[in-house]
Amino acid sequence: MTDDVDALARQVVEGSPRATARALTWVESGGPRAEALAARLYRHTGRAHVVGITGAPGSGKSTLARALARVARGRGRTVGILAVDPSSPFSGGAILGDRIRMNDLALDPGVFIRSMATRGALGGLCRAAADAIDVLDAAGRSLILVETVGVGQDEVDVMRVAHTVVVVSVPGLGDDVQALKAGILEIADLHVVNKADREGADRTIAELRAMLTLMPLVEETWMPPVLGVSAAREEGIEAMADALEGHLAYMKTSGEADRRRRRMVAARVLRIAQDLVAATLLRPDALEAQGSEATTLLDRVLRREVTPHAYARALLTRMGERTPDV
Amino acid sequence: MTDDVDALARQVVEGSPRATARALTWVESGGPRAEALAARLYRHTGRAHVVGITGAPGSGKSTLARALARVARGRGRTVGILAVDPSSPFSGGAILGDRIRMNDLALDPGVFIRSMATRGALGGLCRAAADAIDVLDAAGRSLILVETVGVGQDEVDVMRVAHTVVVVSVPGLGDDVQALKAGILEIADLHVVNKADREGADRTIAELRAMLTLMPLVEETWMPPVLGVSAAREEGIEAMADALEGHLAYMKTSGEADRRRRRMVAARVLRIAQDLVAATLLRPDALEAQGSEATTLLDRVLRREVTPHAYARALLTRMGERTPDV
Repeated sequence: MTDDVDALARQVVEGSPRATARALTWVESGGPRAEALAARLYRHTGRAHVVGITGAPGSGKSTLARALARVARGRGRTVGILAVDPSSPFSGGAILGDRIRMNDLALDPGVFIRSMATRGALGGLCRAAADAIDVLDAAGRSLILVETVGVGQDEVDVMRVAHTVVVVSVPGLGDDVQALKAGILEIADLHVVNKADREGADRTIAELRAMLTLMPLVEETWMPPVLGVSAAREEGIEAMADALEGHLAYMKTSGEADRRRRRMVAARVLRIAQDLVAATLLRPDALEAQGSEATTLLDRVLRREVTPHAYARALLTRMGERTPDV
Repeated sequence: MTDDVDALARQVVEGSPRATARALTWVESGGPRAEALAARLYRHTGRAHVVGITGAPGSGKSTLARALARVARGRGRTVGILAVDPSSPFSGGAILGDRIRMNDLALDPGVFIRSMATRGALGGLCRAAADAIDVLDAAGRSLILVETVGVGQDEVDVMRVAHTVVVVSVPGLGDDVQALKAGILEIADLHVVNKADREGADRTIAELRAMLTLMPLVEETWMPPVLGVSAAREEGIEAMADALEGHLAYMKTSGEADRRRRRMVAARVLRIAQDLVAATLLRPDALEAQGSEATTLLDRVLRREVTPHAYARALLTRMGERTPDV
């Protein structure tokens, strides 16, 4: 396996789209192979600007991501788009991916589009999304757009992988209120009101600005801009790209980039730990499957020679010690 | 702390109600003290018959538990009642406990009543419920009734601590269908139709029996009885107590008791492991709070000398190794 992992990691770092696609399939599946690959790629990461795009369903996040990718390409950047759907039990890979591939972006090797859906626990998806971002980062994509399908606590969790979070609203329908309820407005570094050509756009923009003055800011010295755009008409997207670059520059000069990177890595480590435990917990016969040593320990717990707590700690230790095949 | 824990454990095993109440407060709060106490008490457990009582809200589970406790007392048994509410963010201790204490059972030292509500994650509640059962078991209660307030997946999880699961239905209102949806009928060892003096009780009993013939059984050779009772009028409760004893006897002779105990302990170990990780995960600054060693590791991850995966494994190992103060 080591040879395979080494070869694939090398091809990813060289920027091969085919190797990148394969690496994404690996990290999506999880397991020791994915972990070994992620370990190889990790040192090649940290260069991309990761932008999260979230908002209510129907707010046009997918169209917006594509419009933004086109503008970024015009500025000489390479782009990776990751569409994450925590609510779907299916892999959206085929459906969403194929739909997206049918437009002009698919012909540009400078844009790589991939969708990921829930596999088991959300923790697993967050872990996989973070690893997938690393793959795209190591492959040299300088702008990575992470787009969620819905809005809710799950999406907020997914957004924690981003350097810059864009919250998308649309005029009317009380979508802004819905987003506020989900606590998603609070994580915004940039607000975008899409479909700004629609009636009521000005009011939505004004309401968002008013709401922001009442809210605790993510960072004390950064007031999230509120921009009106039309993703479908490709209007206002250059200004949005400017705002994203502005936020990245602010992050670097203010030291917030370091603080946020620190929080992101800490959250990621904890998510991986949770994922390792969940992978064990989700199987009813998990303990029996650990082999004879575990069965013996279980027998000793049943004879009340060992407490369940002591066994649980032994289990965590063993999970921690299991050396991945690297 | 060791002296405190030793003294309290000794008093619990001697059957002191005051010590039992204090021990329950400890295990409900969790943490190293709770774990040390649970470790002390564990060897004194395994004698009680643990009966889970679940069903739709308003089906009279609480009244049923009290009626059953009264009958069990008449048969010379000591009883512990644990009311678990996964849906409440408050400790129901005062409210529910006080309400229950106002009836005649409160005057009988042979019946110990306690309620527990959600504290943080459900995993924590399941862990605490299992530990609380151990406290009552070690204190010599020979029948422990675990009652849930609602019905749903959370309650199904709570029920996994029981040797015998009673599902309570009431005539009409489609409650049985509601319970079926939640998958709770499938875990029943005994069906009780409460308020059997009401119109439609016979039909509900017949429907349940018909449904059972279509369902996969928990155990191949045990067909769950369906009993009509009236908890408020204390009718049919002796038959219910007989059925519970019958199930316990069946479990022992069939070997199912051993199989189930094995599954229960395995599930409990995994829950404790999950709880340990969740306790870390729920704090955003958890990694920073682990001290300078963790901060150094985090710095190394940020410098990309260590991968997040390797750090996560180190974290699990450390959680496993942290020796509780025993």
